[in-house]
Amino acid sequence: MQLIDGKKTSAEIKKEIAAEVESMTARGIRRPHLAAILVGHDGGSETYVANKVKSCAECGFTSTLLRFEDDITEQQLLAEVAKLNENPDIDGFIVQLPLPAHIDEQKVIEAVSPDKDVDGFHPVNVGRLSIGLPGFKSATPAGIIELLRRYGISTRGKHVVVIGRSNIVGKPIASLLMQKGNTGDATVTVCHSHTQNLKDIVRSADIIIAALGKPGFVTADMVKDGATVIDVGTTRVPDASRKSGFRLCGDVDFDNVAPKCEFITPVPGGVGPMTIVSLMLNTLQAAKQRRGC
Amino acid sequence: MQLIDGKKTSAEIKKEIAAEVESMTARGIRRPHLAAILVGHDGGSETYVANKVKSCAECGFTSTLLRFEDDITEQQLLAEVAKLNENPDIDGFIVQLPLPAHIDEQKVIEAVSPDKDVDGFHPVNVGRLSIGLPGFKSATPAGIIELLRRYGISTRGKHVVVIGRSNIVGKPIASLLMQKGNTGDATVTVCHSHTQNLKDIVRSADIIIAALGKPGFVTADMVKDGATVIDVGTTRVPDASRKSGFRLCGDVDFDNVAPKCEFITPVPGGVGPMTIVSLMLNTLQAAKQRRGC
Repeated sequence: MQLIDGKKTSAEIKKEIAAEVESMTARGIRRPHLAAILVGHDGGSETYVANKVKSCAECGFTSTLLRFEDDITEQQLLAEVAKLNENPDIDGFIVQLPLPAHIDEQKVIEAVSPDKDVDGFHPVNVGRLSIGLPGFKSATPAGIIELLRRYGISTRGKHVVVIGRSNIVGKPIASLLMQKGNTGDATVTVCHSHTQNLKDIVRSADIIIAALGKPGFVTADMVKDGATVIDVGTTRVPDASRKSGFRLCGDVDFDNVAPKCEFITPVPGGVGPMTIVSLMLNTLQAAKQRRGC
Repeated sequence: MQLIDGKKTSAEIKKEIAAEVESMTARGIRRPHLAAILVGHDGGSETYVANKVKSCAECGFTSTLLRFEDDITEQQLLAEVAKLNENPDIDGFIVQLPLPAHIDEQKVIEAVSPDKDVDGFHPVNVGRLSIGLPGFKSATPAGIIELLRRYGISTRGKHVVVIGRSNIVGKPIASLLMQKGNTGDATVTVCHSHTQNLKDIVRSADIIIAALGKPGFVTADMVKDGATVIDVGTTRVPDASRKSGFRLCGDVDFDNVAPKCEFITPVPGGVGPMTIVSLMLNTLQAAKQRRGC
């Protein structure tokens, strides 16, 4: 069993990005600039955004955090999005989800200019990913592909079973893995809450991608010997022994599943750090496109 | 075994559309207007476009056919697309594919205004379909969903195996079938040329969707008893006994597969007529949106 170390890989990629940014600035090209909009004070969102700002610093990017209270109106938020769309100093930006209930998330997502949509959530970027065209790829799926690539795990002809059909993980990772090419060419099955014989289907997988958000859902009896397991779950489970009061739990019963695997990602330290790195790569790509380099 | 009669179903739907159009005109609302651009004289394209024009008449739509020789430049074609985008009399239009090799098809597809893109090929519409948002759905997948619905074939919890991963059939039908809702909720596997153990996977399917374009590829030994088989293949095979010099062949070895099936579509007369009907439904939807009704 080999552990797929997302923390180490993401640190390596951030160093590669930082080197590229230094080479850009040495040529007189401005640093990539990522902005983030954070509405309210959700604990998870605070952590995610803080990590994104920290990663920007590590990559040599400029970052701007725009904070709003959760009584901001939809119209006001859309106006802020429009300002970022028009601001030539900003290469890309994200609106941290979830948003308060009185704001239509999809409306906000579609208001982001596709060429600054470094989260890859705009329908144009989702469509381009599905068709196999260049564009901003949703961060978590792109991070998984990069992990597989860097660990030399071929997907060609492999049976990949994706558990979960969310718009930000399940569907786009399925799309990416079925594309033609070296990081695709997999036979892909997407399972979800309506799937019958789920255990049998998962057990037939060469590669399992668990992205349903149920701690410990994938048990050892569902995993074929020698499978690769990618755990996208990051559920906060109360834990009085931690200073934070919680611990992050994956969708995989790691202790019992790991011994059967050829490769497995831990939680935390697996897919999570790669998601942020994908956002950094998308921002670098946005900056290069805007500067024509 | 029950035959899924796409010809009969499509005729019924065209009557329903015609009745709705008459009710629109009775209220003083202009008829839907579909335009088609046809470049060159490809035999298949001529037939498809002629059938679309004929279907428009049956549905009570206005139609306009714009013909160009295959020496039209990309720039000229893009200018024609721009004119249709701006023409307020046109509700929707298609550019019949394939285009001559000197024209970048994807560039033309992306030049079509998404709100007139009744083929559903623009990345925005592909993305909206994937996310599960309203939009123009690619015609063949939408036609398959409608056939399943009208024949009362539930997809919920069923294992659907799609053979073929094209952007116009395989990928979008997989997307539609994995969406939440009554016409989705299927467990979906997408197979293709790199798939290993293809026979075993197809044999596990409750519903098989064959869309790879290889006549007779799906043989009886690949089909579980009681399966439903949807044949999207329409390959022209030379046949001296026909006036046209060819016959249409599906991807399924119909004679041997049919006896094992609960439901099966024939070729011709199965999915084909439903594709055109989906285009008509998209055009009706476009017209209603433009007229706010």
